[in-house]
Amino acid sequence: MRRVLKAAILGSTGLVGIEYVRMLANHPYIKVAYLAGKGSVGKPYGEVVRWQTIGQIPKEVANMEIKPTDPKLMDDVDLVFSPLPAGAAGPVEEEFAKHGFKVISDSPDHRFEPDIPLLIPEINPHTITLIDEQRKKRDWKGFIVTTPLCAAQGVLLPLAPIYQNFKVDSVFITTMQAVSGEGYPGVASLDIIDNIKVLGENYDNKLIKEVHRVLSETKRNVNDSGNDVTLSATTHRVATIHGHYEIIYVTFKEDVNVEKVREAMDNFKGEPQNLKLPTAPSKPIILTNEDSRPQVYFDRWAGEIPGMSVVVGRLSQVNRRAIRFASLIHNTVRGAAGGGILATEFLVEKGYMD
Amino acid sequence: MRRVLKAAILGSTGLVGIEYVRMLANHPYIKVAYLAGKGSVGKPYGEVVRWQTIGQIPKEVANMEIKPTDPKLMDDVDLVFSPLPAGAAGPVEEEFAKHGFKVISDSPDHRFEPDIPLLIPEINPHTITLIDEQRKKRDWKGFIVTTPLCAAQGVLLPLAPIYQNFKVDSVFITTMQAVSGEGYPGVASLDIIDNIKVLGENYDNKLIKEVHRVLSETKRNVNDSGNDVTLSATTHRVATIHGHYEIIYVTFKEDVNVEKVREAMDNFKGEPQNLKLPTAPSKPIILTNEDSRPQVYFDRWAGEIPGMSVVVGRLSQVNRRAIRFASLIHNTVRGAAGGGILATEFLVEKGYMD
Amino acid sequence: MRRVLKAAILGSTGLVGIEYVRMLANHPYIKVAYLAGKGSVGKPYGEVVRWQTIGQIPKEVANMEIKPTDPKLMDDVDLVFSPLPAGAAGPVEEEFAKHGFKVISDSPDHRFEPDIPLLIPEINPHTITLIDEQRKKRDWKGFIVTTPLCAAQGVLLPLAPIYQNFKVDSVFITTMQAVSGEGYPGVASLDIIDNIKVLGENYDNKLIKEVHRVLSETKRNVNDSGNDVTLSATTHRVATIHGHYEIIYVTFKEDVNVEKVREAMDNFKGEPQNLKLPTAPSKPIILTNEDSRPQVYFDRWAGEIPGMSVVVGRLSQVNRRAIRFASLIHNTVRGAAGGGILATEFLVEKGYMD
Amino acid sequence: MRRVLKAAILGSTGLVGIEYVRMLANHPYIKVAYLAGKGSVGKPYGEVVRWQTIGQIPKEVANMEIKPTDPKLMDDVDLVFSPLPAGAAGPVEEEFAKHGFKVISDSPDHRFEPDIPLLIPEINPHTITLIDEQRKKRDWKGFIVTTPLCAAQGVLLPLAPIYQNFKVDSVFITTMQAVSGEGYPGVASLDIIDNIKVLGENYDNKLIKEVHRVLSETKRNVNDSGNDVTLSATTHRVATIHGHYEIIYVTFKEDVNVEKVREAMDNFKGEPQNLKLPTAPSKPIILTNEDSRPQVYFDRWAGEIPGMSVVVGRLSQVNRRAIRFASLIHNTVRGAAGGGILATEFLVEKGYMD
Repeated sequence: MRRVLKAAILGSTGLVGIEYVRMLANHPYIKVAYLAGKGSVGKPYGEVVRWQTIGQIPKEVANMEIKPTDPKLMDDVDLVFSPLPAGAAGPVEEEFAKHGFKVISDSPDHRFEPDIPLLIPEINPHTITLIDEQRKKRDWKGFIVTTPLCAAQGVLLPLAPIYQNFKVDSVFITTMQAVSGEGYPGVASLDIIDNIKVLGENYDNKLIKEVHRVLSETKRNVNDSGNDVTLSATTHRVATIHGHYEIIYVTFKEDVNVEKVREAMDNFKGEPQNLKLPTAPSKPIILTNEDSRPQVYFDRWAGEIPGMSVVVGRLSQVNRRAIRFASLIHNTVRGAAGGGILATEFLVEKGYMD
Repeated sequence: MRRVLKAAILGSTGLVGIEYVRMLANHPYIKVAYLAGKGSVGKPYGEVVRWQTIGQIPKEVANMEIKPTDPKLMDDVDLVFSPLPAGAAGPVEEEFAKHGFKVISDSPDHRFEPDIPLLIPEINPHTITLIDEQRKKRDWKGFIVTTPLCAAQGVLLPLAPIYQNFKVDSVFITTMQAVSGEGYPGVASLDIIDNIKVLGENYDNKLIKEVHRVLSETKRNVNDSGNDVTLSATTHRVATIHGHYEIIYVTFKEDVNVEKVREAMDNFKGEPQNLKLPTAPSKPIILTNEDSRPQVYFDRWAGEIPGMSVVVGRLSQVNRRAIRFASLIHNTVRGAAGGGILATEFLVEKGYMD
Repeated sequence: MRRVLKAAILGSTGLVGIEYVRMLANHPYIKVAYLAGKGSVGKPYGEVVRWQTIGQIPKEVANMEIKPTDPKLMDDVDLVFSPLPAGAAGPVEEEFAKHGFKVISDSPDHRFEPDIPLLIPEINPHTITLIDEQRKKRDWKGFIVTTPLCAAQGVLLPLAPIYQNFKVDSVFITTMQAVSGEGYPGVASLDIIDNIKVLGENYDNKLIKEVHRVLSETKRNVNDSGNDVTLSATTHRVATIHGHYEIIYVTFKEDVNVEKVREAMDNFKGEPQNLKLPTAPSKPIILTNEDSRPQVYFDRWAGEIPGMSVVVGRLSQVNRRAIRFASLIHNTVRGAAGGGILATEFLVEKGYMD
Repeated sequence: MRRVLKAAILGSTGLVGIEYVRMLANHPYIKVAYLAGKGSVGKPYGEVVRWQTIGQIPKEVANMEIKPTDPKLMDDVDLVFSPLPAGAAGPVEEEFAKHGFKVISDSPDHRFEPDIPLLIPEINPHTITLIDEQRKKRDWKGFIVTTPLCAAQGVLLPLAPIYQNFKVDSVFITTMQAVSGEGYPGVASLDIIDNIKVLGENYDNKLIKEVHRVLSETKRNVNDSGNDVTLSATTHRVATIHGHYEIIYVTFKEDVNVEKVREAMDNFKGEPQNLKLPTAPSKPIILTNEDSRPQVYFDRWAGEIPGMSVVVGRLSQVNRRAIRFASLIHNTVRGAAGGGILATEFLVEKGYMD
């Protein structure tokens, strides 16, 4: 049996924080030991948290007191999950790493530093060796590992087996993202009732840039540099609570049979599956052939580890060199907390959490 | 001054019917003379209509009695607007045409008959000569002219100037359509609260097929058959009341400068503009450069003739041979009733309504 | 250990049907043996059901075939759960009862027959003796027991302890009900986006009439006939999926201290609690003192048996003879399937299911 | 012809600000002369405003520059409309009044000062004489007049004719208010999708307190002090954009015939109607007998001056001493900007704006 790891959750009352709490409640070896917060320090977690997810607040956590976000108070903590918002996350995470904490971050602030992994364990597992470089260079006892933007993961998981096995030319993405992606209070109701909120160029580019980095770190079975892949995204929020839904058109440099693509997606597995990590779904991609699926309300919690698989449907041949599919990712689970936990389990297995 | 044309509106209490009533209330020469309905024959229009649009029920119409859908009762009528649902429309429209009525249809039942125009007056105006062929072949005193599916018009209006002037290779469409597109009661609330309704392959193909027909009838300034253009659509309903929003990626057979595309869209005009038809907006395409527009709530009624222009935004260069834009069309106005009225005005001008 | 009861679920793919399936998946002695349906007979349940609830389709049910609603095919069945719609339910339920089946109905068709119980086991348990009368009078081997309308149960559960212990004068009810209460497709999205759907006088009165019947069967600790209690309701649907929320003003014939009312609610228990029935929550009424609760999204699944408790909040003294509170009931659980299962468990205990 | 009054609008880009701009665009004698703002000073109004209302931005206003909220820059201004948020409004409005400006405020900060009118011109017109007292006491050249909270006006307008003519005992109010009532960004989408937002005790009491003040200033035709009327409110936001909908139960000290109440409401008129003020609807209360009306989407813009009448329906006798009705008010029109303009017109007529 593994040694129990004691985890602190920063921003523990936020929309990603609650998924960490929910998913760790029955984890075999990661235990919530410290709930950090800002506005409600000193209060019992169960009294102040907005439990906008499935199930109920785990009893053992409900009475825990919310504490300050201060590394000096966390003697007993092994690792730190950080779903802090952009801007706030950066300096805090660095301070924790300096103090020797292993930081698993769902925040954007360190996603483009070359010595910090941007990790989806099924796709770019080898990038965890950047941790060694990072520690050396920064003289940190701890380290930071980041996970990509929820919407980027919704593209990357189904795209990975395609990119690995086919000569991709272009990827054209249109997103319909849930409001929980902006946190609470986040999206104004006046922007979303009887409306579609356009996220704009900055968000489009952020998504693309993250997809680009992870693809560039993906090992391929085809003889193709991949440097010239065109990526474009048009991003939106619609009136859904959880679940980012994305339509993805992929064109290729040579003829591609959509059935081969389907096969590649269906067989897609990575180290988390090989290692049977506790939070790894047996299938990272669940393929549906139903004409009207995936649907956000009905499929976002799919899979034996609810919310950890991307559901892909509407896969079809557009022409000899183009295909189309829809991808649905649970943004606060696989796209954030669940992705962070899976990354941690992988790091444990690889000896980085000792 | 033009002779006043007396119009009957079939399905006059439906979501398109009310837009006909609203738009014709102040029309210079088309007058609502007959309100046809089904469930509420004999009742005053104002008592039974569900006025799900802007403004208030025109006073002169509120007290008109709803009458049966029967050509024999319409002695005094010159033309018939038919926004009847699929299946129901077909035989009714034919009966009216046989009886000598000019039928302007927003219904799908006759959209693919080679002798019946599928008309957007800015795009394929010359197809109205099919009417002559139609009358001869079918031995009808009247005729049928159809308008395309709302979502197809949302693609076609911005695509026309591109197709006319550039060598288009592929068009990849993702739609987020309003619930009014399915009529009332139409989309179930349980399909649309906290959800995205996937319309599926049949709807995708229907859209594509209509776009294909109209493009094939579009005159081009480039030396290119256009027969090989790839069209693909992925269609959805989201929780908006009116306004179909569509993200369109276009790839080309040669390098294209997005500024040239912008120019072509901005200058796009057709016969309705040249003829200054009463319901023709001076700009069929309103271009916005705002990063977060068009938005459904704020832009669906844009233009000096509210809802008759398509609002295009997010236009950008994806790579040397690809661009991307967003198109917003008011589905029950330009995409249905307004399109029907504009077609009628054009037919008047061309002598087909005498 | 109890003998296992084999249950048929009529309308098994409907919104109440799925809650029966979900709640019975782990039931200690009621087992789903027959899934009846209409449109999808012959197909596997998991393929056609619209699983609009929490969790996933139980594996052992997913592959069961949907069968016709025919008592002659149900040799092996002990009891029948009937959440059929109004009108359809009446004759079907009678046929089943004639054929010897015990029918537990959530349908309105038999709610006002004097020999058929309208049962909330915590409130009017003694009315189950009507079954004996019913069988005799109708010469049925089986029987019918009904449960009240979801919205009526949302009033009755919190009102019962008040009515039992205080001299109630009037009850003024305003409801904001979820769309699932009308089944699928049910409420049109065009009635509910940016709107409140007014249910109107018939629905108002239906609710009141059911509350009235159950109150008239409620045993009281006060010397007061109760015949003259004024009941009034104003009913609506709002854009929520599950959970009926109701604001209830109660006036009294004498001074009442709200703290005594709170106490009565807090101590409220009935036979299901005394008998520790498997689906009985320890507290049928969960009281909250939080100023902004109950809220539909956050509280509809409250309680150790999710959705089986009514959550009451905003309880306050209006004046010496009036109080106010909010009640939230999960309409398809306690208000339908859960209420039916609880009724069954109670009947088992009382020997009516042998 | 009246002298033209030049108006400044504070918070001109806000949700009430835009209604001022819209309604004054064609006003016979009040002209928008100064658009004050905060975040967007120096920019053209049309470029930054979020036009979340009907119609389009008036052309003559679209190019006006947004200017600072500073009385010293407003030489040319006669009166100031202030829909500033709570807290911010107080000192600003006082400064303007000191500088000699007539301030019409929709803000809460001065609603309970005994020398500042809380004015609904149909109900308590005589309270404008408080202005004289106010100026004397505070030594102001200008003055402040306030209008009540939108939700309070939705109660007060239909309640006034009842209170004037019958011996009211209690008023029990349940509200379902639109999100625009909290301004932008205001209500979080995560609080309102698939949820009802409970406003809580403070809001309940605020509403009651305002209703109480205005009722206490209402002249009655009955011999009854009215001091002992019980008022209670339970307040909520639901997923509607504009339009506060309220269910109101009224009990009386003696028997009341609902038809007499209907008559009183139907005949209700005040000074604005007698004086034929430009923004006064001929009927401040529009009564509907339709069973399913008023509905927010369909009725909020009712009346010949859209949004200036309250629509009352569902009026019915509950018992001999109780009635029930539904009231719908357009919160940003009659409940704010329109109410402010009507108050101004009344003050003009009474010589206070000279």
